[in-house]
Amino acid sequence: GGGGRRGFMAPPVSGPQELWRRRRDMRGRMELLIMETQAEVCRALAALDRGAAFAVNTWERKEGGGGISCVLQDGHIFEKAGVNVSVVFGNLSAEAVQQMKSRKTLKDKDGKLPFCAMGVSSVIHPKNPHVPTVHFNYRYFEIEEADGTKQWWFGGGTDLTPTYLNKEDAVHFHKTLKEACDKHDPKLYPKYKKWCDDYFYIKHRGERRGIGGIFFDDLDSPSKEEVFQFVQSCAKAIVPCYIPIVKKHCHDPFTPEEKLWQQLRRGRYVEFNLVYDRGTKFGLATPGSRIESILMSLPLTARWEYMHTPPENSREAEILEVLRNPKDWVH
Amino acid sequence: GGGGRRGFMAPPVSGPQELWRRRRDMRGRMELLIMETQAEVCRALAALDRGAAFAVNTWERKEGGGGISCVLQDGHIFEKAGVNVSVVFGNLSAEAVQQMKSRKTLKDKDGKLPFCAMGVSSVIHPKNPHVPTVHFNYRYFEIEEADGTKQWWFGGGTDLTPTYLNKEDAVHFHKTLKEACDKHDPKLYPKYKKWCDDYFYIKHRGERRGIGGIFFDDLDSPSKEEVFQFVQSCAKAIVPCYIPIVKKHCHDPFTPEEKLWQQLRRGRYVEFNLVYDRGTKFGLATPGSRIESILMSLPLTARWEYMHTPPENSREAEILEVLRNPKDWVH
Repeated sequence: GGGGRRGFMAPPVSGPQELWRRRRDMRGRMELLIMETQAEVCRALAALDRGAAFAVNTWERKEGGGGISCVLQDGHIFEKAGVNVSVVFGNLSAEAVQQMKSRKTLKDKDGKLPFCAMGVSSVIHPKNPHVPTVHFNYRYFEIEEADGTKQWWFGGGTDLTPTYLNKEDAVHFHKTLKEACDKHDPKLYPKYKKWCDDYFYIKHRGERRGIGGIFFDDLDSPSKEEVFQFVQSCAKAIVPCYIPIVKKHCHDPFTPEEKLWQQLRRGRYVEFNLVYDRGTKFGLATPGSRIESILMSLPLTARWEYMHTPPENSREAEILEVLRNPKDWVH
Repeated sequence: GGGGRRGFMAPPVSGPQELWRRRRDMRGRMELLIMETQAEVCRALAALDRGAAFAVNTWERKEGGGGISCVLQDGHIFEKAGVNVSVVFGNLSAEAVQQMKSRKTLKDKDGKLPFCAMGVSSVIHPKNPHVPTVHFNYRYFEIEEADGTKQWWFGGGTDLTPTYLNKEDAVHFHKTLKEACDKHDPKLYPKYKKWCDDYFYIKHRGERRGIGGIFFDDLDSPSKEEVFQFVQSCAKAIVPCYIPIVKKHCHDPFTPEEKLWQQLRRGRYVEFNLVYDRGTKFGLATPGSRIESILMSLPLTARWEYMHTPPENSREAEILEVLRNPKDWVH
């Protein structure tokens, strides 16, 4: 470890000199933001978990770049908490280009595109079934097309997956995200809230993975500067969104039945991540990507029961209803 | 329940009259074979598990056909054992056509093809980490192309996923399959053994799911009759392949560490099934398919640990070596 005076979890992927040289470029500014976000979140989690230490692994990618994975496993409060930074560059394979095209059309040359992708991503699975799982991811892409045109865009989001519905928590989570968005444009929160509900949809179950949050991709307007400022606000909202909810519930008593329901919901989390998640598919299809960092998002344990249906009017049925029909939490 | 005098698990999907009418057609003969296979396997498993009863669910598919799912969950010996029969027909969606094309090129009309698909499929996850998981699937397809041409083919296979390597068991399993194949053509076993090793490959892990067995698809030669006879031999080999291994090990003592390794291997099983398995993808993409029957293949519980590496020369490392470099078990 030893990230120097800024208190990073490890020395930055680009190296201190290169990062200093790029400090006014978007690549440099974004790398600083993702490093700061990683350190801020890890410190907040470790402080809550009786000072439990994150295992820090740095890795290099043969094809260019690398990353820093911070994982706290089997802690007091957290079952598995991973916060990962990656800064990778090189040429995208045709398969990876396919996975990452969401709305953009990219002109590739023989199926290859020089690219740089960086981001911070995290999934935090607590032990107590009354503390929700959170996921966030903020990322920046640059791609050079065959004719030399440089395309860039940001993507990201923060979303919550509770085992049981707590309306107060849902409102706090969404309101905190809305405030971060509203500083930039009041149209953003409603748009990205809906995008989140649409994205985290487990089609074969007819359920969302959780109660949502915000999600956006391919963001390249109004300007690089303004999008970066927006992404920065979202990143700064992670801790105030989530940590108060953990503090509130981490000592709640729970029954074996509640733990079992959590395990079944963890199974759904695995289904979404392995069947639908674009980030996971992109990672698994990118040569030289670090599998352990990508699959860090999977819970420590999960369960699948054949034909499990919670009784009507139970707390399990209550959350299912919201996962089937997303709600507006802020009006 | 009540499958009549043949001792099926439930009345056949096509109904007794239609099945009688079709008794000389391949559709009728194959439906009988898959019904018999389901009943034979369920009876063998229930007898082992102190007479535990299978939950039998019949379901209909709005678009045509239906199925019979037999599941034994949380038994004495079996954690989750599912044996599923389905007989479905209708029009394939463009998405489903895409998933099922392996080597065949099909001429579709506006992306739609009238089809009939039937099969028996099963995954059996025992509790004891010294008893391997088994999977088998035998299926028959008929498809009508735009010009009225009828294509048909068989597919199938049986493969074993042990938590720990037992060479004697591996040899017994492969030899029993080889004998079933050799009755028809000595070239079949080596070809389908390799196909199995190639198919059950978890690319992102560089590991196979298990120690293989046989796997084949798009089988339409030398003749419909001969292929059916071969498939029948394979189906009849399931019980002699697997049941002796269960009997031998179901009372083996095991440690918590061995149970943990089993759970980690269950995690890999989930990864293969959700990320790569063509049957699962086909099922999830087919409108009106029964999700509970498709995802019956997932284990009751699974585990993912960040950067878990078994010590050198351990029994865990021994099985990993075989999963990375498949062996020839019969020579």
